[in-house]
Amino acid sequence: MTDRPNTPLLDQVHSPADLKPMSDRQLRQLADELRAETISAVSETGGHLGAGLGVIELTVALHAVFDTPRDRLIWDVSHQCYPHKILTGRRDRIRTLRQKDGLSGFTKRSESPYDPFGAAHSSTSISAALGFTMARELGGAPDPALGDAIAVIGDGAISAGMAFEALNNAGHLGRRLFVILNDNEMSIAPPTGAMSSYLSRLYGEQPLHDLKEAAKGAISLLPPPFQEGAKRARDLLKHATMGGTLFEELGFKYLGPIDGHDLDQLLPVLRAAHDRATGPILLHVLTKKGKGYRFAEDAPDRGHARAKFDVISGKQHKAPSNAPSYTKVFAQALIDEATRDERIVAVTAAMPDGTGLDLFAERFPKRMFDVAIAEQHGVTFCAGLAAGGMKPFCAMYSTFLQRGYDQVVHDVAIQRLPVRFAIDRAGLVGADGATHAGAFDVAYLANLPGFVVMAAADEAELVHMVATAVAHDDGPIAFRFPRGEGVGVEMPERGQPLEIGKGRIIQQGSRVAILSFGARLAEVMKATEALGARGITPTVADARFAKPLDRDLILQLAAGHEALITIEEGAIGGFGSHVAQLLAEEGVFDSGLKYRSMVLPDTFIDQASPRDMYAAAAMNAEDIEARILSLLGVARMGKRA
Amino acid sequence: MTDRPNTPLLDQVHSPADLKPMSDRQLRQLADELRAETISAVSETGGHLGAGLGVIELTVALHAVFDTPRDRLIWDVSHQCYPHKILTGRRDRIRTLRQKDGLSGFTKRSESPYDPFGAAHSSTSISAALGFTMARELGGAPDPALGDAIAVIGDGAISAGMAFEALNNAGHLGRRLFVILNDNEMSIAPPTGAMSSYLSRLYGEQPLHDLKEAAKGAISLLPPPFQEGAKRARDLLKHATMGGTLFEELGFKYLGPIDGHDLDQLLPVLRAAHDRATGPILLHVLTKKGKGYRFAEDAPDRGHARAKFDVISGKQHKAPSNAPSYTKVFAQALIDEATRDERIVAVTAAMPDGTGLDLFAERFPKRMFDVAIAEQHGVTFCAGLAAGGMKPFCAMYSTFLQRGYDQVVHDVAIQRLPVRFAIDRAGLVGADGATHAGAFDVAYLANLPGFVVMAAADEAELVHMVATAVAHDDGPIAFRFPRGEGVGVEMPERGQPLEIGKGRIIQQGSRVAILSFGARLAEVMKATEALGARGITPTVADARFAKPLDRDLILQLAAGHEALITIEEGAIGGFGSHVAQLLAEEGVFDSGLKYRSMVLPDTFIDQASPRDMYAAAAMNAEDIEARILSLLGVARMGKRA
Repeated sequence: MTDRPNTPLLDQVHSPADLKPMSDRQLRQLADELRAETISAVSETGGHLGAGLGVIELTVALHAVFDTPRDRLIWDVSHQCYPHKILTGRRDRIRTLRQKDGLSGFTKRSESPYDPFGAAHSSTSISAALGFTMARELGGAPDPALGDAIAVIGDGAISAGMAFEALNNAGHLGRRLFVILNDNEMSIAPPTGAMSSYLSRLYGEQPLHDLKEAAKGAISLLPPPFQEGAKRARDLLKHATMGGTLFEELGFKYLGPIDGHDLDQLLPVLRAAHDRATGPILLHVLTKKGKGYRFAEDAPDRGHARAKFDVISGKQHKAPSNAPSYTKVFAQALIDEATRDERIVAVTAAMPDGTGLDLFAERFPKRMFDVAIAEQHGVTFCAGLAAGGMKPFCAMYSTFLQRGYDQVVHDVAIQRLPVRFAIDRAGLVGADGATHAGAFDVAYLANLPGFVVMAAADEAELVHMVATAVAHDDGPIAFRFPRGEGVGVEMPERGQPLEIGKGRIIQQGSRVAILSFGARLAEVMKATEALGARGITPTVADARFAKPLDRDLILQLAAGHEALITIEEGAIGGFGSHVAQLLAEEGVFDSGLKYRSMVLPDTFIDQASPRDMYAAAAMNAEDIEARILSLLGVARMGKRA
Repeated sequence: MTDRPNTPLLDQVHSPADLKPMSDRQLRQLADELRAETISAVSETGGHLGAGLGVIELTVALHAVFDTPRDRLIWDVSHQCYPHKILTGRRDRIRTLRQKDGLSGFTKRSESPYDPFGAAHSSTSISAALGFTMARELGGAPDPALGDAIAVIGDGAISAGMAFEALNNAGHLGRRLFVILNDNEMSIAPPTGAMSSYLSRLYGEQPLHDLKEAAKGAISLLPPPFQEGAKRARDLLKHATMGGTLFEELGFKYLGPIDGHDLDQLLPVLRAAHDRATGPILLHVLTKKGKGYRFAEDAPDRGHARAKFDVISGKQHKAPSNAPSYTKVFAQALIDEATRDERIVAVTAAMPDGTGLDLFAERFPKRMFDVAIAEQHGVTFCAGLAAGGMKPFCAMYSTFLQRGYDQVVHDVAIQRLPVRFAIDRAGLVGADGATHAGAFDVAYLANLPGFVVMAAADEAELVHMVATAVAHDDGPIAFRFPRGEGVGVEMPERGQPLEIGKGRIIQQGSRVAILSFGARLAEVMKATEALGARGITPTVADARFAKPLDRDLILQLAAGHEALITIEEGAIGGFGSHVAQLLAEEGVFDSGLKYRSMVLPDTFIDQASPRDMYAAAAMNAEDIEARILSLLGVARMGKRA
């Protein structure tokens, strides 16, 4: 373990109230200590480093000026909340971040009253803050009573349509509300879009220096004597407005831009805003992701997400991998197909790295579109591309595709347009927890008429499914695959289109048939092996398709076995439900069949390793084995070694 | 039937090509004839009148200047497309609008090559147009080859986040693309939000007259002689830019505002834009919804949606109703509850009339929020209100709630916040067709942990479900109800909270049990009556809850009957799938049960009367009866009278 940093001031902070008596000089020192503690903690746990380092001073200033938890401080996305957690009574658990039974890597209502609103998907904070604001205006009275609402949102996140909708509504309602635009020119990837250029122009037009002087001039007078200070605060507010017409047109008072790492600016401007605001205010703060830690600042992603690392050398401790990640397999398969078919294009919503499309863009820069954090637009943009004769691959995480659901239904499915959905992070995802779980996509896609829905059992299957999607031009098609590494199977030289709606028998057995949809197949095979030792040889099949179902295969499995079990990395309503509907319609249940459908349980599962999360879901090999033994009425003697 | 209007010029138009040789004077006359024809057609069919009348001149001008269908003209929402349909070869079927086997009330790809992109939900047009544009840039080559893409979008629709996302992306990509902002200060309801105020300021600041003169000055020189005309066109483009900073900041060239009913302005400005544009252009056009038909212009909704009417008197032919509409019952029940509980607030996304919240707002103006066309924000705003101690009722149509699905999952369900979802237009909806069907909500809500999902069997049940939602403070709750009138049951004086997760037996019978979820109950009772005549008395139960399920009731029905049928007005993955999962887990299928789940079929059903649509779905009384007879092995002799 690296030596813990020396943090004499921070050691005295048990809650934000302890910041109130501190001088500005002390707050500056506290910020330095908080930065060192954040680096130290993340070096032990891994997690989102760069974002937290970028808001160290902002976190200190907000807690010093506002009265949390009465004032509701809402961190957008909230992977920048580690320093906030340290200051709000969770320092003792900060080295359990993102681990089983530890602190969440995001804000979480159940964790602390200082987290009034959880977040993990971007661009929700202004809507939530407006909700708190109007609740306050109407006398909503939870404990503690409602004060101000403050949303802290990044320049990437504010470009999402949802944030615009919230600004539009907040500007219209005109109530006192604070939006801090944390502009670091960097969300997960560099932001894209016209809004981003606009913000660059805003801070390009005016030197920061002017405001810094104004802020310094005001600081000596603020807060006491208050009457005089108030006048200066008002002046400061007036003079600090340097641009931001777009926000002003939307009904916000615009302040900034100011240097978000300079507490000599942050504190007086926030105090002025706090003391004088009567309506919605947008404070434009410039920060640097990874600020103050060289190895983060210098990294291309500014230290966005790190494995555990050595503080001194910056070196990350990553376990060597045995197989390529599904993400990379997808990207390479798509690149391979795109060399042969120039109609293939790829679309990501601000996740070029996460989806592997950065690799695609290196090879085909004109054929990759990063539409910004804009899943709604991204999906319909793909529909337009498809209607224009292209073969768009819409690459999104399962959980983020939820943002574009109506567009999937209305613009893609109803029009039967051949958009290809590459759905990464299907199933449980580990340290990011419940907010990032890809649990619902099979259910919400497979009930759409005309959709083809596939899941890859392993990384070789994924290659074939990319080829299948390229070849399928009659309506929308989706294929899902999990986070992380493949299982190490032999890879095909080139993907071969699968026959639509046909599964495959992996192993022929008797008594019980296991019909797997997706990447639980490896666990199924492990369970099968264990059952073999007991003289039970299940039939195992890989469905490949949740839609259309392989009717013949399913009826044959049902007819030839005493029991049939389906398994999928998804919630109820998906593959298993479609199989059950088929069996019911075909009258298979009339005369009896031991049918079971293993789906994710009816609960949101907190962060842990994927394996532990699937254990909590009772979907690992031993759970499958136990399920089958119980179904066949075989007593299970002790736990298998 | 009203006398058909005299339309000598229009009679010669078989496709937009026929507009090309016409002089501007002739085009003006054509517009007048097109208006008369539109009024006449809608008087016979009913439908969206006001929106079409507002774009008569724009429709003529666009088809005169652009080269459709090579140029892709995309109407946002597209309920304003009737004049477009008349000009594009569908005049002979225009009096079948919105009827079974007739023309759709919206644009539809399968209907005409002049409808390159279907729409019905708002704010999708810019994304689609950008898709066509980038397909063109990349050599996408369907038939006909790709020309320009033009999106026509209203001032209400452009305030949606999705439209902002598309503007942001289009501004960034910088390609030639046309967005016509059709600003009529009126979407379905008057628009709300800061964007709307911004647009009002834009045309408030500059008199229209200036541009009109500029346009008139240019018209004589355009198009031939072309060289000279081109120069004037460039000048016009320059001078026409009068404001629109917000759009310019997003990378668009802004033109306008101009009078959208004056072809002397529209034609030269569109010609200039067409001839000179190199990047994205936003043309701001002012129009009047219902223009040119007094009874529409004078109506509070500007003739938004009409029943059949008499052209001379403007009088609508509405069938007298026997029961109140579900929408009104919901609104009145909510008002009733809100008089006793001041924490109740209501949120609509630009549908105060459609959801009945206009009535709520009359009584409680400060407690109703119209957030504009912004379902994403609306849902999370409700989550914030709930976290702030209020009891928000989020009133949206089933199909539009799809727009906020990720927010339902991430901001409401994961945080277990007590947002109440009042889901109107559940099931098939009639003349609006497939795009407005509320088919998927049960599936996409009931698999979310912690959700309570109800469906009202009749209007009295709806009143109790409103009371249940008010009382339920432990997590999210949703209740769905169909479009149209109730069934005429006796109404309770006041709603009584239902026990969560408990259904009710309607009728005790034998052999077969029908478990209904929602408003098919009336059809189930009709089927039951018919079966009674054959000596079969089914047990009938109303599940009330899809989640949590009434386990005891379901197991009791399964145990006591030879067959069990579920029925719901929704797609697979919903109520029936949850029942099947329960039966499987409980081992009921092991020994055999005739189980069937009646759900919407795996197809998008075109517009017709709701009854006809349910006939197409095989879910009316006679279908239920037939299903049961077949299941019990009873031969069905002839069709029942």
